[in-house]
Amino acid sequence: CNRMEQAIGNRRLDFSVAAVLPAGGSGERMGTATPKQFCQVLQRPLISITLETFERVHWINDIVVVVSKQNFELMNLIIKRYGHSRTTVVEGALTRHQSIFNGLKAFVENQPCITWLQKPEVVIIHDAVRPFVEEDMLFHVATAAKECGAAGAIRPLVSTVVATNPESYLDHSLERAKYRASEMPQAFTFDVIYRAYQQCTDYDFEYGTECLHLALKYCGISARLIDGPPDLWKVTYKRDLYAAESIIKESLSKRVCIFTGIQEEPVQLGRLLQEALQKLMEVDVLNWSENKESRCIQTISSGQYYNFVCINVNNFELSQEIVKLLELIENRKLSVLYPVVLTVVHLNNLETSSPCVQMEDFISIKELAKEANRKNILIFRLLLNYTQELDKVEESVKEAASIIDSLIKQRSPALIGHFLVV
Amino acid sequence: CNRMEQAIGNRRLDFSVAAVLPAGGSGERMGTATPKQFCQVLQRPLISITLETFERVHWINDIVVVVSKQNFELMNLIIKRYGHSRTTVVEGALTRHQSIFNGLKAFVENQPCITWLQKPEVVIIHDAVRPFVEEDMLFHVATAAKECGAAGAIRPLVSTVVATNPESYLDHSLERAKYRASEMPQAFTFDVIYRAYQQCTDYDFEYGTECLHLALKYCGISARLIDGPPDLWKVTYKRDLYAAESIIKESLSKRVCIFTGIQEEPVQLGRLLQEALQKLMEVDVLNWSENKESRCIQTISSGQYYNFVCINVNNFELSQEIVKLLELIENRKLSVLYPVVLTVVHLNNLETSSPCVQMEDFISIKELAKEANRKNILIFRLLLNYTQELDKVEESVKEAASIIDSLIKQRSPALIGHFLVV
Ligand SMILES: [Mg+2]
Ligand SMILES: [Mg+2]
Repeated sequence: CNRMEQAIGNRRLDFSVAAVLPAGGSGERMGTATPKQFCQVLQRPLISITLETFERVHWINDIVVVVSKQNFELMNLIIKRYGHSRTTVVEGALTRHQSIFNGLKAFVENQPCITWLQKPEVVIIHDAVRPFVEEDMLFHVATAAKECGAAGAIRPLVSTVVATNPESYLDHSLERAKYRASEMPQAFTFDVIYRAYQQCTDYDFEYGTECLHLALKYCGISARLIDGPPDLWKVTYKRDLYAAESIIKESLSKRVCIFTGIQEEPVQLGRLLQEALQKLMEVDVLNWSENKESRCIQTISSGQYYNFVCINVNNFELSQEIVKLLELIENRKLSVLYPVVLTVVHLNNLETSSPCVQMEDFISIKELAKEANRKNILIFRLLLNYTQELDKVEESVKEAASIIDSLIKQRSPALIGHFLVV
Repeated sequence: CNRMEQAIGNRRLDFSVAAVLPAGGSGERMGTATPKQFCQVLQRPLISITLETFERVHWINDIVVVVSKQNFELMNLIIKRYGHSRTTVVEGALTRHQSIFNGLKAFVENQPCITWLQKPEVVIIHDAVRPFVEEDMLFHVATAAKECGAAGAIRPLVSTVVATNPESYLDHSLERAKYRASEMPQAFTFDVIYRAYQQCTDYDFEYGTECLHLALKYCGISARLIDGPPDLWKVTYKRDLYAAESIIKESLSKRVCIFTGIQEEPVQLGRLLQEALQKLMEVDVLNWSENKESRCIQTISSGQYYNFVCINVNNFELSQEIVKLLELIENRKLSVLYPVVLTVVHLNNLETSSPCVQMEDFISIKELAKEANRKNILIFRLLLNYTQELDKVEESVKEAASIIDSLIKQRSPALIGHFLVV
């Protein structure tokens, strides 16, 4: 899963596509009060991560998310807070199928809907709780649906499927090779799925297994089945939330940008730090000097980095560059979707500096760090002691790199503002 | 999943039970070179966690783990290193079914096996990559097998199951309510499953879906199917390793034991820390004084705690108690299975102490911490500043509690030996 690196595709489709995301589930299986689509993953509701995935796909025109009445307001707040500009919220109904049908109605002119959206040729249906679907997969189901009327992702069965008799004894096992698990996304030409729903009985709405089956039953369309990757899995249990969080953290930890000043020490130590960190992630180094400031601003604004390291020489205050960097992260809204990690490395020459640290220096930036944390920016601090002994410096830099790596991977607000001494 | 709290059951069975754990899988699906049962979860191979689960169940007499030839030595090393005294390693074969059969042969006298184990009445078969099975579930399948000849855990289907035609189009969807996913554990009377395997054809060995099916086909035994909890899931993908690690970390973070000395400040701050930490986990406080030392030793040795906090007054050296605690943790092998977290809280009265900290105090215990880390003990340090102002103390203690909570939950070796100032 490389969501952060996922380039904006160059794909073009000669037909229009929209998406409907049912998000009415109640989360009973989770054992939590909150339905799983609203559970937090890195302090953000899971559904917002799925919406981000869809909004990255430029050829999907509209996204309709269907939620239960009691979550309607919450959903609109989420959309506002995380800037999901292409998403419309529609009120669901009692069953999943009725909710999907309500979502489809938002595209049909003469339906009493809050918003009326342009009817697409193809509609993708996807679960709000499958956040990691990739553009490729969406593209494949959309084009196959345009061609065949219906398409859906499948996966090999993980377990053997058995039929039970009413007394809970084994009746027979299915031959695994002949069957597949039907997953999401699925896609349909709009008219096929809309017609299928128009003909649904109350029984279908209540017990009907899935859309592919309805398209077959009411429109005679046999869906094209496409092998999907394991990432399509559905966040169902608490452990799936753990997994989703780890996947995102791993993805956010792939790149770091180091800013050095122009003085000799920071430039030199920046280079050493780069060497040590390169074994752990991709590293870029930039000198933040007056004539290169616009390049730094450009790099920060690119949205490619969620991790920054600033090498500081003004013991132990924050340099002007760091203050500017914080402003930029905020203004460019880089931390709206994911927490941004900023590690400030203070250089301390043991040969020239005092051998003791004032207690107040340890707590001086705590308030600033708390304030930044409210904006989803995690500020950590490292005090890097060095002397002219090259061996020791390398040792220290290696330790610093391992700490920075850990701070980036864990993104834990508990340690913000703290001074870690190397 | 409450594995740490899982009391040693009082269950007694009037028949003998053994377990066979096939662990021959190649881990292709994982996308890693290491088969998943040997992947690390908190620096320990997943299979060792499953073995620990089985060894906690006192009514299971023998555990046979079946591994491929190339992992035979590795498996024996794992057994030695983590003290799996009731486990025997048996060499597997090319297919899963042949491997299970090899495992069963270890209980049959006239088979050419390295070790010969006593034939049990009932044998439980379980995947090495399903570490979180609980005693209850094992008990249910074992007793049902004794009664019916065969039993297995089932789960509701997460996805709709579809039959495809040869051109990858939907043939039909199964009615989800009529089918179940067959999971592990499964149990059989030894003679039933052994007889079934003796009659297996080469085709069965290669393509046979599962043991329940073989018991039905060759012995006419229709297995009793028992609803299992979601914890039975199979660690298959990298995300499952993330989930497993999070589940274990959560489980290890449920309790902490605080040791105070007998002086006024540590006792008082220990009480405040207890109050703050109690909102996050279960907390016990013990005074480590001469007349209570045996009680402290007893508490540590009980194996109920994987987290300790020591309140220290000897700025900034480690007290005798901490040195003793470290020795105890090592001697009682508490950190063999899981990393133990020891947070040392140094009290610093700002009104009487120096306003500055010597740099050397920051790095003084780093070597000790590195040494402890090699024994799987993570030592963290907090410097807790306090004055007579009660409000401020409470604020600081609250922050200290939140840091301790985070250090315990993350168990990250990167921060060992560091001084976090509150
Ligand atoms: Mg299986
Ligand atoms: Mg489904």
